[in-house]
Amino acid sequence: MADSPNCDLKSLSPLQLFERVTEQGEKVRALKAGKAPKDEIDAAVRMLLSLKLSYKTTTGQDYQAGLPPTDLALINNGTTKEEDDDFVDPWTVQTSNAKGVDYDKLIVRFGSAKIDTDLINRIERAIGQKPHRFLRRGIFFSHRDMDQILHAYENKKSFYLYTGRGPSSQAMHVGHLIPFIFTKWLQEVFDVPLVIQLTDDEKYLWKDLTTEKAYEYAKENAKDIIACGFDVNKTFIFSDLDYLGSSMGFYKNIVKVQKHVTFNQVKGIFGFTDSDCIGKISFPAIQAAPSFSSSFPQIFNGKEDLQCLIPCAIDQDPYFRMTRDVAPRIGYPKPALLHSVFFPALQGAQTKMSASDPNSSIFLTDTPKQIKTKINKHAFSGGRDTIEEHRKYGGNCDVDVSFMYLTFFLEDDDRLEQLKQAYTSGELLTGELKKVLIETLQPMIAAHQERRKQVTDEVVKQFMTPRKLAFEF
Amino acid sequence: MADSPNCDLKSLSPLQLFERVTEQGEKVRALKAGKAPKDEIDAAVRMLLSLKLSYKTTTGQDYQAGLPPTDLALINNGTTKEEDDDFVDPWTVQTSNAKGVDYDKLIVRFGSAKIDTDLINRIERAIGQKPHRFLRRGIFFSHRDMDQILHAYENKKSFYLYTGRGPSSQAMHVGHLIPFIFTKWLQEVFDVPLVIQLTDDEKYLWKDLTTEKAYEYAKENAKDIIACGFDVNKTFIFSDLDYLGSSMGFYKNIVKVQKHVTFNQVKGIFGFTDSDCIGKISFPAIQAAPSFSSSFPQIFNGKEDLQCLIPCAIDQDPYFRMTRDVAPRIGYPKPALLHSVFFPALQGAQTKMSASDPNSSIFLTDTPKQIKTKINKHAFSGGRDTIEEHRKYGGNCDVDVSFMYLTFFLEDDDRLEQLKQAYTSGELLTGELKKVLIETLQPMIAAHQERRKQVTDEVVKQFMTPRKLAFEF
Repeated sequence: MADSPNCDLKSLSPLQLFERVTEQGEKVRALKAGKAPKDEIDAAVRMLLSLKLSYKTTTGQDYQAGLPPTDLALINNGTTKEEDDDFVDPWTVQTSNAKGVDYDKLIVRFGSAKIDTDLINRIERAIGQKPHRFLRRGIFFSHRDMDQILHAYENKKSFYLYTGRGPSSQAMHVGHLIPFIFTKWLQEVFDVPLVIQLTDDEKYLWKDLTTEKAYEYAKENAKDIIACGFDVNKTFIFSDLDYLGSSMGFYKNIVKVQKHVTFNQVKGIFGFTDSDCIGKISFPAIQAAPSFSSSFPQIFNGKEDLQCLIPCAIDQDPYFRMTRDVAPRIGYPKPALLHSVFFPALQGAQTKMSASDPNSSIFLTDTPKQIKTKINKHAFSGGRDTIEEHRKYGGNCDVDVSFMYLTFFLEDDDRLEQLKQAYTSGELLTGELKKVLIETLQPMIAAHQERRKQVTDEVVKQFMTPRKLAFEF
Repeated sequence: MADSPNCDLKSLSPLQLFERVTEQGEKVRALKAGKAPKDEIDAAVRMLLSLKLSYKTTTGQDYQAGLPPTDLALINNGTTKEEDDDFVDPWTVQTSNAKGVDYDKLIVRFGSAKIDTDLINRIERAIGQKPHRFLRRGIFFSHRDMDQILHAYENKKSFYLYTGRGPSSQAMHVGHLIPFIFTKWLQEVFDVPLVIQLTDDEKYLWKDLTTEKAYEYAKENAKDIIACGFDVNKTFIFSDLDYLGSSMGFYKNIVKVQKHVTFNQVKGIFGFTDSDCIGKISFPAIQAAPSFSSSFPQIFNGKEDLQCLIPCAIDQDPYFRMTRDVAPRIGYPKPALLHSVFFPALQGAQTKMSASDPNSSIFLTDTPKQIKTKINKHAFSGGRDTIEEHRKYGGNCDVDVSFMYLTFFLEDDDRLEQLKQAYTSGELLTGELKKVLIETLQPMIAAHQERRKQVTDEVVKQFMTPRKLAFEF
């Protein structure tokens, strides 16, 4: 059955929404204090989360108790998004469409290229293998210069992979795995070196964290990344706080990028203001620099012209648009990119998930029981309100989060197609679809947890030590 | 005899001055092309330099052929400096007063404290030695928290020294030695560790230089600094481009400072604009970080609360005002400072010298003959126009560059006082005063050159290797 959407909230002003969230928060506290029946409390919490989501979608800000929306003037003065106008930058992803962001429009707006059947077929010919399900299903849907990478590869010229993560907390969820699952596949089929940046400095700058805590999160997150199965002989994982102080190439490239990007440019690309700290303002250069092979002299033996391929979620593209603009001016090749869609929150595809809300996704530390409960309770359903209606009209896979998650994690194409048809026709009920997802995720996460246990501090240290990898340059 | 000052230039507009410089440049070229008599060419060149200086004083910009003054509107709209209103920041020092900047006013404007007789006496008591001539003669004239440093020292608590240089060219002139001569004395009398920052990254960001060239200049400049006689066991010299990539403490402190300073703040302090590159905007944190002992874990054994004393020219104070503002917010002690006056150009105290104009100062590579010629030809004189007038009215030591240089370099207080009286009374002629300066500088620079020859690349490497110094912490 579908959770009830909050259609009536659309007409509320940011301040009215703020007041509704505040009231609902007080209601939840009152229910809990009065030891009300569990299902009554759960319903009130669901409503609270839903209100907070609407608040964020409308204002672009997380609800903070006691802090009414500050940018009312801005919101009411021309930047109000039209219904089908999504907002995407590295910190905010907003859409009012339950199907999620309109990615075709994003391709046009960002000026990237669609990963079409021709490109997928060319990848298949180049690697002599079936393309990854993320390619087959349009989860990696956009690119920049992937044809160049393939052309080089077809002519026996190598490249390297670069991806990353901002370690904002110890907890990673299944959505965080998407770039790593795909990057691992790319590394295997192309047999190329990989560098993974953990931007602990970024998290220190943006969050209320000490440098020590951010570095600790980086090392914890490295364990989950390593547990995806990366080869230590081909992969270098680094924390900025750590690597910047131990590489003769990294800072030189950072300062080169910093010389060629003005405040006006980062203001335009990232929306920085005069009140932002100078660390945020100069940070984009730190995410840019690993796109150049000379940032890793120990891996690439000082080779400066090796091309880089960056698999990442599309919200990271602004960093690399900037990087590609600077690259030729400092004598380096532009990095190529492969962009993924966003992984939807359990509550629906309107927003990116939040690591701080445990019910917004399935975490890599969740028990089988937690996985089951979360999916049954929180996964937004595209099913009908009653069994009778569902049988008659069928469910809507386009907005059903359980079905979306299955497109990410169920390998079998035929099975996925069967599920889609059965759900759309009304033959398969929401509960049954959720059961398939639960049975897909439970063993997947259990296996991840098992592999993560093997990742000792010593193993992390190996991955994070600057060194030569198993490639010659 | 005095060189003739260009009094008539004061009334010209920036554009008129620009045209005068252009005309004079053409005249010099024509004279050279026509193989005119040497003294005629020399006179025309002197006039050209003088015009360029007036142009710079008026517009705040170096004359560039074909580029008329751009900030006319700005200059004519309220920022025109009143006759006694000096302008001082790390890139520009301007005054229209031939005696130089009004330092008492600068102390009030910067909010620092005057180094008075009491403080000098207290230093003398603490170290049990005669204070350096730079203190006796007000060359180091201003301070921040020097009393704290002395209080700590009197109570057997140590501190460390930090100074630096921006290596913008291979050539250093005698003025560049001032902070190093004084720092060497401080290090000897207090017996404390010293770190010297070479901001090759800054020079890369501000100038048309490659990182390689900037680093090369850093190493060349290090030789001149080492030739001042620093003890390798007590001194660490570092290039930012080099040390940032080899220290586990430096970048962490940089990013801490960067988190606590906004663009609004650096805009206010350094005059950055939205068109400046993000490297310039974040650079102040890199000059700030060596003020904290944890930037040098190998020297201070991880000790984070050792106080720092920074001897520098007063134009560097904006960096350290910012640093002192941030320090308590990131849990570190504020650095103390000792500020020097500016070393005057040969042409007069109205401007800071330019390393790109070989005639604006005595360079450390100059031969005895070059020293003699430069002083005789270019040192602005406070003498009278004719011998008769000079004998009658006397010279003016306040504006005489030869006398100013002697206050920096002639150790003997009594001799200096005799010269002053003899020159002021008219007993000593300009040529005779210049001769004393020539005879002071020639052996000083020859000795420097001799010591510099001993500074091999190997010695530079020793100074620039992060390591433990001869102190326990």
